[in-house]
Amino acid sequence: SANGFGLESADGKNAIKLRGLFQSDYRSYQDGANDVRNRSNARAGNLDANGFHDANDTALLRRVRPTIEGTLFGKYDFRFTPELAGGNATVIDAYLDARLDPAFKIRAGKYKPFVGLERLQGGGDIKFVERSYVTNAILPNRDLGVSVYGDVLGDKLNYAFGVNNGVVDGGNASGTSEFDGSKEFTARLFATPFKDETNALSGLGFGIAGTTTNIDGERNLNFTDTSAADATRNGLPSYVTDGQQTFFRYGSATVADGKRTRIAPQASYYYGPFGLITEYARVKQDVSLSTGGSASGGGSGGNTVITPGTSKSLSHDAWQVAVSYLLTGEDASFRGVKPKNNFDIDKGGWGAWELVARYSEINLDSDTFKNKAGTSFSANTYADLSTSAKSAKSWTAGVNWYLNQDVKAQLNYSHTTFDGGAGVGVTAVNAAGTNIRDRQSENALLARLQVAF
Amino acid sequence: SANGFGLESADGKNAIKLRGLFQSDYRSYQDGANDVRNRSNARAGNLDANGFHDANDTALLRRVRPTIEGTLFGKYDFRFTPELAGGNATVIDAYLDARLDPAFKIRAGKYKPFVGLERLQGGGDIKFVERSYVTNAILPNRDLGVSVYGDVLGDKLNYAFGVNNGVVDGGNASGTSEFDGSKEFTARLFATPFKDETNALSGLGFGIAGTTTNIDGERNLNFTDTSAADATRNGLPSYVTDGQQTFFRYGSATVADGKRTRIAPQASYYYGPFGLITEYARVKQDVSLSTGGSASGGGSGGNTVITPGTSKSLSHDAWQVAVSYLLTGEDASFRGVKPKNNFDIDKGGWGAWELVARYSEINLDSDTFKNKAGTSFSANTYADLSTSAKSAKSWTAGVNWYLNQDVKAQLNYSHTTFDGGAGVGVTAVNAAGTNIRDRQSENALLARLQVAF
Amino acid sequence: SANGFGLESADGKNAIKLRGLFQSDYRSYQDGANDVRNRSNARAGNLDANGFHDANDTALLRRVRPTIEGTLFGKYDFRFTPELAGGNATVIDAYLDARLDPAFKIRAGKYKPFVGLERLQGGGDIKFVERSYVTNAILPNRDLGVSVYGDVLGDKLNYAFGVNNGVVDGGNASGTSEFDGSKEFTARLFATPFKDETNALSGLGFGIAGTTTNIDGERNLNFTDTSAADATRNGLPSYVTDGQQTFFRYGSATVADGKRTRIAPQASYYYGPFGLITEYARVKQDVSLSTGGSASGGGSGGNTVITPGTSKSLSHDAWQVAVSYLLTGEDASFRGVKPKNNFDIDKGGWGAWELVARYSEINLDSDTFKNKAGTSFSANTYADLSTSAKSAKSWTAGVNWYLNQDVKAQLNYSHTTFDGGAGVGVTAVNAAGTNIRDRQSENALLARLQVAF
Repeated sequence: SANGFGLESADGKNAIKLRGLFQSDYRSYQDGANDVRNRSNARAGNLDANGFHDANDTALLRRVRPTIEGTLFGKYDFRFTPELAGGNATVIDAYLDARLDPAFKIRAGKYKPFVGLERLQGGGDIKFVERSYVTNAILPNRDLGVSVYGDVLGDKLNYAFGVNNGVVDGGNASGTSEFDGSKEFTARLFATPFKDETNALSGLGFGIAGTTTNIDGERNLNFTDTSAADATRNGLPSYVTDGQQTFFRYGSATVADGKRTRIAPQASYYYGPFGLITEYARVKQDVSLSTGGSASGGGSGGNTVITPGTSKSLSHDAWQVAVSYLLTGEDASFRGVKPKNNFDIDKGGWGAWELVARYSEINLDSDTFKNKAGTSFSANTYADLSTSAKSAKSWTAGVNWYLNQDVKAQLNYSHTTFDGGAGVGVTAVNAAGTNIRDRQSENALLARLQVAF
Repeated sequence: SANGFGLESADGKNAIKLRGLFQSDYRSYQDGANDVRNRSNARAGNLDANGFHDANDTALLRRVRPTIEGTLFGKYDFRFTPELAGGNATVIDAYLDARLDPAFKIRAGKYKPFVGLERLQGGGDIKFVERSYVTNAILPNRDLGVSVYGDVLGDKLNYAFGVNNGVVDGGNASGTSEFDGSKEFTARLFATPFKDETNALSGLGFGIAGTTTNIDGERNLNFTDTSAADATRNGLPSYVTDGQQTFFRYGSATVADGKRTRIAPQASYYYGPFGLITEYARVKQDVSLSTGGSASGGGSGGNTVITPGTSKSLSHDAWQVAVSYLLTGEDASFRGVKPKNNFDIDKGGWGAWELVARYSEINLDSDTFKNKAGTSFSANTYADLSTSAKSAKSWTAGVNWYLNQDVKAQLNYSHTTFDGGAGVGVTAVNAAGTNIRDRQSENALLARLQVAF
Repeated sequence: SANGFGLESADGKNAIKLRGLFQSDYRSYQDGANDVRNRSNARAGNLDANGFHDANDTALLRRVRPTIEGTLFGKYDFRFTPELAGGNATVIDAYLDARLDPAFKIRAGKYKPFVGLERLQGGGDIKFVERSYVTNAILPNRDLGVSVYGDVLGDKLNYAFGVNNGVVDGGNASGTSEFDGSKEFTARLFATPFKDETNALSGLGFGIAGTTTNIDGERNLNFTDTSAADATRNGLPSYVTDGQQTFFRYGSATVADGKRTRIAPQASYYYGPFGLITEYARVKQDVSLSTGGSASGGGSGGNTVITPGTSKSLSHDAWQVAVSYLLTGEDASFRGVKPKNNFDIDKGGWGAWELVARYSEINLDSDTFKNKAGTSFSANTYADLSTSAKSAKSWTAGVNWYLNQDVKAQLNYSHTTFDGGAGVGVTAVNAAGTNIRDRQSENALLARLQVAF
């Protein structure tokens, strides 16, 4: 049942399948701080020296995604996937695939834009509890629009081009219409030139992807009489650690104001029980400071007005290398693992066991934390180095236990260090910004029980 | 698979079906302005002379509705339909049908109250991308309650009577309990007197429907410490164009304050490949001005207090005529189209092609924009003519391509003109209100890809 | 089809089932007041002498829960249940059951923690329209975490131990991560010692359950620029009547501040057509008063600061006795009823008919309404006796009509009296608090149509 439960018509041209992905997680923090935003609004007495809470241990539902998918008239595939984890249910995937030809397919609706390699790996197939900074912090998650894609050159080259609404770094479009009319263009080429051979290179794939758009954010973060604050209307992302704690936010005056481009070279390699995935991503984002918009104390506020002379183009980048090894002899692949022997106490099977390790880091443009003139770290910056960190570097090691094709347990230990983000050592930020303290290292244990069918 | 994928028991008395409706839309505006409310709270510099933004081009999910429906013990039908399009998933339909007799059925839960003809046509069967002003702006969409209905006089007369919570014009009840305890009564008669004949009149149907209730709105639009603002508690609607841009809102002091009645004569006609639908609707709504309620700057505010002498009864109306013609020879009907030849590049089939055209308009009571005494357009009016338009008139032309019974592409071009709604030509509103400028005409291209099974 | 519609693999080890629960309710109040919080923010003129609105009659969707459940590899059960009733869809159940042994099963995800007896009865099987105060007001509803459970001693003793995030009284965890890191431990033992015998005791079951945790609430009730107010972050519940009107809320300065323990002895008894369920629950909650947090007029506010010397431990308790009798001769049980003759007008079947009656009450610690020193009812109390009642006592009588195994109609009449909660008889609260008036008695008619398969 790794392929879901299905019904099909006698001629096989119409079919429907019920599938599901369920992940129940537990996060435990030995060390580490919570969201930068929560430094106020909190219980007195629980705060560390830098004003942070400890990150809170918690059980949570990470993904709860019943799926209906199917094929109509042999050529038209559809997929409906709600996301039930989290406070309110939303749609995570809803698209139509028109498979006009293996070399020319059209996908329309809400889907993963064809950009990041690790993102395109299914949420039930990823080797770690959470994806790397490349995927979560820089590249798009889900977007609305249309893509053409297909396999050419003897199925050795996969191409994809898309026109989408556009989402912030790591962003997941909500399904509703956009507040900014500019489209985001995506492109990706991924080659598997040796796939038909039977040598050590047959499992090698590599490619490159990119996105480009213009985006004008609004300083519209406050509640009005008839609509709630929308923290995403500034057109800018926040970034989270491997333990899913926010360590970087732009300042409230900062808005996206112009071009955003991303580029992401990527590769994967599978050989017997060994797997490797590596990816790099750079985003270049034009930002400006603004006034207006946010009326303190509620109310509708005024128009967003860009402060003259504050435009700057910021470049952030991230990369990762991740390896996996199946101890029980199964072949590694981009997809899930089917154990040779299922776990069964009575019959003595132990399932499949896999060890994984990853290094991933993200580095923000140092101009993010300086004013336009480069003379100050404390006034008119795009983000505040004393609350937001400039970089995060994570080592993650883990073990995956595949009880059978459908049930999996995962355990990751993650160690993350930061540059900046935790207040000022002396009284005021010095001219070089070098007296800013580092956010406390994060040591997190991430556990997961998964059912996927 | 136009009837979904199903399972049934051996005796056929218990059955369940999976169905789905998916619509991925794109909206492009050659001309046209955005929501009246967004005239402030926006990027400076993007605004037109009248303070509007251009309407934003966008891709969006319009309907994403996986459905479970079925029959129990041969007589009891049920239907569960979530709506996954939009920010958060909600329930769009959830009801029980007890088919005690063809002439006496009971429906309870959340459903389309039996009122508007075009509304009762399925969201996957409508001939245009968006329904007309009659349906979207005046008549109810979904409500909670119970209806009895059935076919009598040799199935030539369909009747329906309902008792519901009541919804504002075009409104979709949320599934939760009501803040106003008055019920809305609905009634509808629809005749197809020649349905058993085989002449040019056999496809003719006509009828009339109405609703009546009392509703007292509250001036409670602000956030309180424990609940979010609810823009619908004033008991009044806003109205959108064919391009789905809001062009009319009541003023913040205006609340529903008394009787609301609606009446809607309606007819449809199908003859060979030709189809016609026409409908008129009038709503009469008692309103008053109020003070209190909305405390500026957050906080809980005070009670709603009706300002003495401000009660007025406003009558708005809308109508539409829409025609369709199937070029490929299929028969038109109230339901979907099954092409004679499915689209298939290899075999040379081209599906079914249909041309459609519609005229629809809405006219608001001119008293809406005058004060009680009828002496001023600028103070103590129920809506502001310099931001909200008094009428909208839309021409829509389109083409529908049915690739097969389940997959459809639609393209509509819509041209809308307005009366009022875009600021004052001279310095102040004159006594007659004649110097108010018209909102910019809207020219919109609405495209859709649809899967329905 | 009382067991849903299903598909299974040839060996029966993999199976999936579609199930559904639909409840369309109507609530009508002959007497009774609305939520304590709504005493302001309302239409002037509708208020009673004590500042309350009348409770509003309403139709509503109470439960709309399509469910996908199944079994993988013969041992791993899963269940996905969204709740579509209410404004936004959420997840109500999402868990994995690993049935390693009948005496040792593991459940992980979001589920009903094994605590209350009436809570563990399915929402489609309960004998009354709404559960008692024991269940709705004191014991947990749904939580996130993991439990081990099983049947031992010849299946005569069921045990369960759980570690969960923890929820407030009657609370339903949202699926997202927690703001307070402390775990809640749950335990339950339930014995059916005579189940294998065929005497009058064979239908007897009894047990005891409890929970314990620490919880530090935050005074963080206001909207900030980027997040909405979360009324639950104080870590404290509100309580509703049998008619689902809130009659008790803690004051805005009160926060959970320490230990919370619950204990719940419970028993059920079924003999022929007769059924009985009885349950008691006591919760002991440490609370304190606080300052800070809630900045009036929006804004982010400051840290929660506990006011020294205001800590107190409050004990609230509730109990219920409920009986049911099947007039049509079916056997009563903890689960649903399968009629001997289905309702069928043509064949003359009338379904199954059942009479039910219940007494249930809740009593709050009188210290809740006094200041720390016990000298005042009007200042520095944990809740305000002039708006919140100190106790609620409900008599409920009803009739259930089972048309068949899947379709049910229910009608309950409920009479509730209160102690306190409706203003001050004289000018100011006297020293003993004895001059506080009682909230108006509530007389409610609760009706339901249900489909469950």
